[in-house]
Amino acid sequence: MTKTKIGLIRVVSFKDRKIAELHGKLIEHHYPILQVISRCIKDQPKGIYNDETEALAIPNIVELGLEFEKEGEVKAIIISCAADPGVKELRKKLSIPVIGAGSAVAALALTYSDKVGTLGITEGTPQIMEDILGRHLVAEAKPDGVQTTLDLMNEQGKNRVLSCVKSIKENGAKVIALACTGYSTIAIAPELEKRAGLPVLDAVLAAGLAAWYFIK
Amino acid sequence: MTKTKIGLIRVVSFKDRKIAELHGKLIEHHYPILQVISRCIKDQPKGIYNDETEALAIPNIVELGLEFEKEGEVKAIIISCAADPGVKELRKKLSIPVIGAGSAVAALALTYSDKVGTLGITEGTPQIMEDILGRHLVAEAKPDGVQTTLDLMNEQGKNRVLSCVKSIKENGAKVIALACTGYSTIAIAPELEKRAGLPVLDAVLAAGLAAWYFIK
Repeated sequence: MTKTKIGLIRVVSFKDRKIAELHGKLIEHHYPILQVISRCIKDQPKGIYNDETEALAIPNIVELGLEFEKEGEVKAIIISCAADPGVKELRKKLSIPVIGAGSAVAALALTYSDKVGTLGITEGTPQIMEDILGRHLVAEAKPDGVQTTLDLMNEQGKNRVLSCVKSIKENGAKVIALACTGYSTIAIAPELEKRAGLPVLDAVLAAGLAAWYFIK
Repeated sequence: MTKTKIGLIRVVSFKDRKIAELHGKLIEHHYPILQVISRCIKDQPKGIYNDETEALAIPNIVELGLEFEKEGEVKAIIISCAADPGVKELRKKLSIPVIGAGSAVAALALTYSDKVGTLGITEGTPQIMEDILGRHLVAEAKPDGVQTTLDLMNEQGKNRVLSCVKSIKENGAKVIALACTGYSTIAIAPELEKRAGLPVLDAVLAAGLAAWYFIK
């Protein structure tokens, strides 16, 4: 099988190569035709968790995107963050598809139902997901006491997520779009599906699905 | 490779089995893991082309959907029409995913750009696609002199489509969502891409993509 390379931009400056490559590996596992080259933005060890950290990240995301296209190896680029930071900016500069995890998972949810719930981490539903979901966004939840994506990597953070997800179904949603790619890092979607009794859509996998479609 | 069966409902009462199965074959070709069982609604040889014919079709679509689920063989159902007729009704009755070609292609377009154009046949953009695209719908076009999906099956109809597609790019769209599955029947998307200079998304293939994701 000839694999097609895509670029993936992590918006957390992970030093650990294995952690940096987790989203890429998840995509490769689900879409074996894709080979993912993962790169992290510089100087943001805590990632994006509010407007300020998002604004800081955008020039670095654009820089990585330009670098990917200049090298000419990848056929599409994924920005692995549910807020789609830098996606609009990069689309203006690049000729290859630029897929944002947030827009991808919101869109995928709309293929399943017109009643969508989101599960965020700190800031609720990112603006780009609200824009796409519009009046189809019927429920939102986020765990108490979680500040950054790193807090999800321990047992306490995970339990907090599991205990808040039920309210989304109670509020009328028929499908849940994960509104943070930190959830992909801990691959919590299957467990959440059982707990919530609804399909739970992973933002990184949704981005991989779109990238796979557009490179075909 | 173990194939997964999905059901596909055609909203035109084709007598010719080969034509009836065209959308299913297209999906099988692009997603080899899927095996598509195609069925046509009864009594509508001209298909759905206005509100009246849509209203007529819905009970028949629901009947076919219930039949698919009762037989227990398929893991998802596609309604192969860009107006998503019967999708809402069937989702209330069935436990397997029900994918509409219109919502699927509109959603897929949003993973690529926030500036989407649609290419309809007779009635412009179906309501369900307008609902999903919202303010991201920036351009619409439809060919002159085409009344039903059958008119696309001759050379004159095809030429009329090709000559109207350029205006979509001129009006600012960055991607085109085909707003009628009649375009899938004539597999015109690649030719339209060349003419329009933009990615052109086929509604049947978009529905296949979503179905494939949800049966995994």
